[in-house]
Amino acid sequence: MSIDALNTQKLQEHAEEIRQQYEDLKAKNLNLDLTRGKPSSEQLDFSNELLSLPGQNYRTESGVDTRNYGGLVGIQEIRNLWAQVLGIPAENIVAGDASSLNIMFDLISWSYIWGNNDSERPWSQEDKVKWLCPVPGYDRHFSITEHFGFEMINVPLTQDGPDMDVVRELVKDPQVKGMWTVPVFANPTGITFSEEVCRELASMETAAPDFRIVWDNAYAVHTLTDTFPVVHDVLSMGAEAGNPNRFWFMSSTSKITLAGAGVAFFASSKENLDWYSEHANIRGIGPNKVSQLAHVEFFGGPEGVYEQMRKHAGSLAPKFARVLEILNERLAPFGAAEWTEPEGGYFISVNVVPGTASRVVELAREAGISLTGAGSSFPLKQDPNNENIRLAPSLPPVSELEVAMDGFATCVLLAALEAA
Amino acid sequence: MSIDALNTQKLQEHAEEIRQQYEDLKAKNLNLDLTRGKPSSEQLDFSNELLSLPGQNYRTESGVDTRNYGGLVGIQEIRNLWAQVLGIPAENIVAGDASSLNIMFDLISWSYIWGNNDSERPWSQEDKVKWLCPVPGYDRHFSITEHFGFEMINVPLTQDGPDMDVVRELVKDPQVKGMWTVPVFANPTGITFSEEVCRELASMETAAPDFRIVWDNAYAVHTLTDTFPVVHDVLSMGAEAGNPNRFWFMSSTSKITLAGAGVAFFASSKENLDWYSEHANIRGIGPNKVSQLAHVEFFGGPEGVYEQMRKHAGSLAPKFARVLEILNERLAPFGAAEWTEPEGGYFISVNVVPGTASRVVELAREAGISLTGAGSSFPLKQDPNNENIRLAPSLPPVSELEVAMDGFATCVLLAALEAA
Repeated sequence: MSIDALNTQKLQEHAEEIRQQYEDLKAKNLNLDLTRGKPSSEQLDFSNELLSLPGQNYRTESGVDTRNYGGLVGIQEIRNLWAQVLGIPAENIVAGDASSLNIMFDLISWSYIWGNNDSERPWSQEDKVKWLCPVPGYDRHFSITEHFGFEMINVPLTQDGPDMDVVRELVKDPQVKGMWTVPVFANPTGITFSEEVCRELASMETAAPDFRIVWDNAYAVHTLTDTFPVVHDVLSMGAEAGNPNRFWFMSSTSKITLAGAGVAFFASSKENLDWYSEHANIRGIGPNKVSQLAHVEFFGGPEGVYEQMRKHAGSLAPKFARVLEILNERLAPFGAAEWTEPEGGYFISVNVVPGTASRVVELAREAGISLTGAGSSFPLKQDPNNENIRLAPSLPPVSELEVAMDGFATCVLLAALEAA
Repeated sequence: MSIDALNTQKLQEHAEEIRQQYEDLKAKNLNLDLTRGKPSSEQLDFSNELLSLPGQNYRTESGVDTRNYGGLVGIQEIRNLWAQVLGIPAENIVAGDASSLNIMFDLISWSYIWGNNDSERPWSQEDKVKWLCPVPGYDRHFSITEHFGFEMINVPLTQDGPDMDVVRELVKDPQVKGMWTVPVFANPTGITFSEEVCRELASMETAAPDFRIVWDNAYAVHTLTDTFPVVHDVLSMGAEAGNPNRFWFMSSTSKITLAGAGVAFFASSKENLDWYSEHANIRGIGPNKVSQLAHVEFFGGPEGVYEQMRKHAGSLAPKFARVLEILNERLAPFGAAEWTEPEGGYFISVNVVPGTASRVVELAREAGISLTGAGSSFPLKQDPNNENIRLAPSLPPVSELEVAMDGFATCVLLAALEAA
């Protein structure tokens, strides 16, 4: 299904019907929210046991009292567990508070103020800092680099990851200091980087010695099918290629247990972790170890993580399937949009008729359906083609989702009609 | 008891006895740690109920699902509770993750990178940033301003707070951008700022428009007696004096519930909070609301907080009393030290014979007693008189504390003897 196939004649033939559908939609006075990739109540219920943990077992196996101060890198047991989940040595993993986004912000902030462990000078003292942004991508990533005033450079995303021909060329510029990635079930496209792309990213030459790839593996185990993706050990790939400090590897339990009260992880080379700790140790005394211990008890081991993810898949997969069905029923006949069919993650990325995405969002809002703003998956929220919309099917129950998606399809058709 | 009263003659008369006491001490092969102000296991037990909270009640009164994303400023219920504890309107309070130190670091970091809401330019673009440091003070405060390369200026601390004649003079310098304080039961002296000092700090003219006082009210309810201190509402004092944005008011439950897994608070003017949120909203999605709800349930209301603090006082007061008794028995006869007798907080500040503090710490370490490093209560760890030592009586049980304090006294006397 390609957007090139827009059937304007058919659209015109159904113009009256589409307009009537939109009026009917508005008459429903809906109040539906599809803006963010939030887990549903049903999904959060899978972790309710955590709300009473750790209970009276407040000591780790090695005897650490998690109630007290200390332990900057997190408790050993959760680092061990996540080492197994990610296939990375535990000594390369720091366990923090709930949010990996916080850690990403700090890594960039500290590089900006003091430079990272490979910097010749703080990034704030560079004439300009440029940052590679595979698009469409995660809005909150782009907000961070925007906040620091970095020049963001769009890089096309293929089915296998960022277009490496483009990346290899861009990193010859010493002002290019880093790159955002979501390597598995990417936000919002759902694509997963191929092993070849991983190796190329690990081995490519960069002009900046302190170049870093934020490897935000937020959906590493977030399958919608029966199979789990391979988590490539890019730290080893980098080390083997002579670039041991290339990756800032992020992970968290946010969409595994409790979205607002999980555990975040930062995995990297020893040198990178030492540099991180040097600053983190000034910023504070350590993360919430009680929550970390609760997670260790909750999961039991890596199989507990996979079991939990199968429950999530059981809740999410039918929603994704229903969204795809509706898009297919309503839009395919007109060739009025193209979309991804992800096997994991939290989003479906839709390209509507070029130039109409913001109008679709506006029409939906007027009908009581909140969508993520048009362009939000691009740096500075500027979608050069004004065509991309990110759908987040996780939060609403199926019945609401069906109403919202049917309404969304109507808006896509109406906007296409207006533009025809 | 004043250090001026050092009785060298008496010291010499007891020289042999003191040397023998030190040899006996070393022979015990102790391994005791008095370095940090950590709560004891007994104190942490007072909060064990928290380890199973919030249980299945994961929604706030207003219906927020604490398990999910969102809520940058924390849940309303914990803000309401802390508003009552601090005597500050809830809308002026943000509830965060466990560590107020983290928030202090971020406030300074963000002022450094972007300037605060009253800055003409980012602090990083100032020729020099100077920071007032009442001494002796909290080592982790000083580590932050050292990390950012600020010039730290010692300000003498009186019984009523910082010497205001000195402060008023220093803030005429526009490069002076801020000041550390621990206004109630200060670390390490235990002194509490008088209402007059609070008002003067709120009303004094400063050359820098973006001058900030970090009002680290870490021990606001941490009494060792039957009475709780008055928590002065410096936000109102500042507003009344035309300086509404002067105070960054910090608080936390760290030494009320679980030291590593509590809730931290940042209270300030609306403008300051808006500025904070502008950056915090880029750094992440929000704090651990599950932990906040657990705390609301645990305390029930402000009286629950006071009840909890009475338990802490019941555990800590005998330890403090015992330390003071031993210092008095062993050191007063020689006039070999002077010390504070705090009515709250976590520390006793001891001044030994000038020039001998580092030697005392060395002697203690050789005898298996770890003390906080000499000078650690001063910027750059430089005590100009090499006389101050911070004692932290909270962690060890009384029996160990007695052994450690007796050993400490021996070391003080031996160092005095060596220097005599």
